[in-house]
Amino acid sequence: MESCWRWSSLSSRCAGWMTDPLRAEKLDQLAPILREMGIDCWLIYTREVTSDPMLGHVCGLDVTWRSAFLFTALGERVALVGELDRPEVESSGLFTRIEGYQRSIRQSLRVLLEELDPRQIGINVAMDDPHADGLTHGMHQDLLAHLAGTPYSERLTSAGAVVRALLSRKTETEMVRIRRAAQITMEIFDSLDGRIVEGISEKQVSSWLEKELVRRELEPAWWPATVSCGPDSPIGHGPPGDHTLEAGQLLHVDLGVKWQGYCSDFQRVWFLGTPGQLPDEVCHAFQAVSGAIDAAAKILQPGATGAEVDAAARNHVTSQGFPEYPHALGHQVGRSVHDGGTLLAPVWERYGQSPFMRVEPGSVFTLELEVSVSGRGLVSLEEMVRVEPDGLVWLAPRQTEPRFVC
Amino acid sequence: MESCWRWSSLSSRCAGWMTDPLRAEKLDQLAPILREMGIDCWLIYTREVTSDPMLGHVCGLDVTWRSAFLFTALGERVALVGELDRPEVESSGLFTRIEGYQRSIRQSLRVLLEELDPRQIGINVAMDDPHADGLTHGMHQDLLAHLAGTPYSERLTSAGAVVRALLSRKTETEMVRIRRAAQITMEIFDSLDGRIVEGISEKQVSSWLEKELVRRELEPAWWPATVSCGPDSPIGHGPPGDHTLEAGQLLHVDLGVKWQGYCSDFQRVWFLGTPGQLPDEVCHAFQAVSGAIDAAAKILQPGATGAEVDAAARNHVTSQGFPEYPHALGHQVGRSVHDGGTLLAPVWERYGQSPFMRVEPGSVFTLELEVSVSGRGLVSLEEMVRVEPDGLVWLAPRQTEPRFVC
Repeated sequence: MESCWRWSSLSSRCAGWMTDPLRAEKLDQLAPILREMGIDCWLIYTREVTSDPMLGHVCGLDVTWRSAFLFTALGERVALVGELDRPEVESSGLFTRIEGYQRSIRQSLRVLLEELDPRQIGINVAMDDPHADGLTHGMHQDLLAHLAGTPYSERLTSAGAVVRALLSRKTETEMVRIRRAAQITMEIFDSLDGRIVEGISEKQVSSWLEKELVRRELEPAWWPATVSCGPDSPIGHGPPGDHTLEAGQLLHVDLGVKWQGYCSDFQRVWFLGTPGQLPDEVCHAFQAVSGAIDAAAKILQPGATGAEVDAAARNHVTSQGFPEYPHALGHQVGRSVHDGGTLLAPVWERYGQSPFMRVEPGSVFTLELEVSVSGRGLVSLEEMVRVEPDGLVWLAPRQTEPRFVC
Repeated sequence: MESCWRWSSLSSRCAGWMTDPLRAEKLDQLAPILREMGIDCWLIYTREVTSDPMLGHVCGLDVTWRSAFLFTALGERVALVGELDRPEVESSGLFTRIEGYQRSIRQSLRVLLEELDPRQIGINVAMDDPHADGLTHGMHQDLLAHLAGTPYSERLTSAGAVVRALLSRKTETEMVRIRRAAQITMEIFDSLDGRIVEGISEKQVSSWLEKELVRRELEPAWWPATVSCGPDSPIGHGPPGDHTLEAGQLLHVDLGVKWQGYCSDFQRVWFLGTPGQLPDEVCHAFQAVSGAIDAAAKILQPGATGAEVDAAARNHVTSQGFPEYPHALGHQVGRSVHDGGTLLAPVWERYGQSPFMRVEPGSVFTLELEVSVSGRGLVSLEEMVRVEPDGLVWLAPRQTEPRFVC
């Protein structure tokens, strides 16, 4: 899909990051994290088109030519960029030192590393976390070629732990934005209550969500939001179709919005009927799903592994006679709706090491799972929580029973 | 900078690619290109966040989990994706075969390769072209781990030539869009003629360009467009500043727009004064820059190397007593404003092998260079051309003298 453009804000888009209080907050976190992880120097080595996502995250910058951004444990922030990119990098005001090159980055990069002489150079290579894997294979080969014959090619190591800590440890401003995105999502769900009628199609619900986003001048966290009606609802992400909602069936919506660059991610379920008409099997499914989220929430605290938290929910739902959900229980949420790092996931090969990683205080997770109820639809709930040092905070009122419409 | 969102078109954004005639045109090119390049199978191996740009280019899709997209020289198009991504991939209607996995991609990938049994598997790894370098280093390691013990890990090769051909060989629909983007850029330049007055600032010019884009509901090819006034104009990309245009000085604008996903990229120069007031040194600079573009255009034909074309312009401008420009003469333009592949560039280390690559019929290039005129500003021109089998076509009327405003 094409990237699109918000007409009203070309100027603010450019000005935004430069004056954003987040910039200082995240940069202030960086040097202490580097010291904690024993990495002298974090190197983002990147260029246009396949740009490292952490460059945007930390600096809000794009570059054209091969560029090296070095952040040291002592707080230095050095940019080595093509001369044509230099004016923009200078105007960011982010760097303690900026160097330009014209014909080759090699010599300047080697001299710079000799001066800084880091013992460990963290690069963005990670099998299990795409956020920490922004160095392409070609650029990795290119970097090794530039460093050939120096001691620095032997000092490269994964900066995965640095990236994970930087993304997981949400600052105050980040939390303000995530909370606001969560609140707006709840308001949009509320606005749906009055719109849902017998015969409404998935596409019509999707169209209403779109109108609400446009009216609020908000970007979705991803699109299309998942909308599914009735017994044929698949588990997973697909475009809204022509299924319509009939009496006694369930409507399921998975929606996230972005507010000032930060995401929300929630799932809610409606039942077309009165509380008195609720079939026992739907009621039972709700108890199982909601109970699984309870069970996980009890375990979700600093130091727990992702696998332990997932297992609590997975064991609960299967103990209630339902099949286990075919995915991880929860992911972190931030600037990306899937924010990387510790994942509340089972030990499946595809999740790699991320289920063994530990929960950090300050991080934001989803808790999400579903069961399918024959003839009715999906009971699929997703909540967002912030992990505090001494407990969980729910970022929106929980759903424990269907929203009834009739 | 944040990616932004066009409120009015969430639905059309999703529907767009699926019904786009381009999809069929580009897919039709693919199997013959694979046969020509001797690659049985092109593998795009990717996941969310650091998504391979060619996945969007060829399929208009995003995926979450590790996914393998295999395109064979016989025209098969196979997707192996996480079960949760499967509904969306199915709804694309693009693939001759779709498989889902839940716990690990490994076994399905190995079985699939055994069935297809390609002799050469092209992967997106390239030091000199970011478009062909979408495989991250972590994902490359992951792929090797999955293929360990099979013959296929030994059959991996760069798909650079495939990506280059696919991007360079513009189809009819692609050319319609690029021409329209070029035409609109000229209209926006024309609209500036009446706005430029003594004392206008770079920021005011930029603001006008933004208004024109908003009014036309068009996305820029990049932002901010470069606007520079007067003698302190830097060579390169920077945000517009507070410099104002004074009598006898030059205003320089570098602007590109996107029309239906395709880019333009032009530079134009205004002189604040009458033709009679034009200083000889500005006139001389225009002749040198325009003459260098002429010299390059004579060489720019199918089969020429990028370095030969660049050298023609570079030699011309230095023969006129001006310093050589500190960058490549021209790049390809398409869905990306820098579309990769053969570059009209000097043999500098930073350009790698791209100056040695040859010009293909059907490709679109810029021709751009500048000289700085002391006390006046930049004479920086950029034209766009399409390389036909039997000659060049200019995509807009050329600039050979200043646009006069007074």
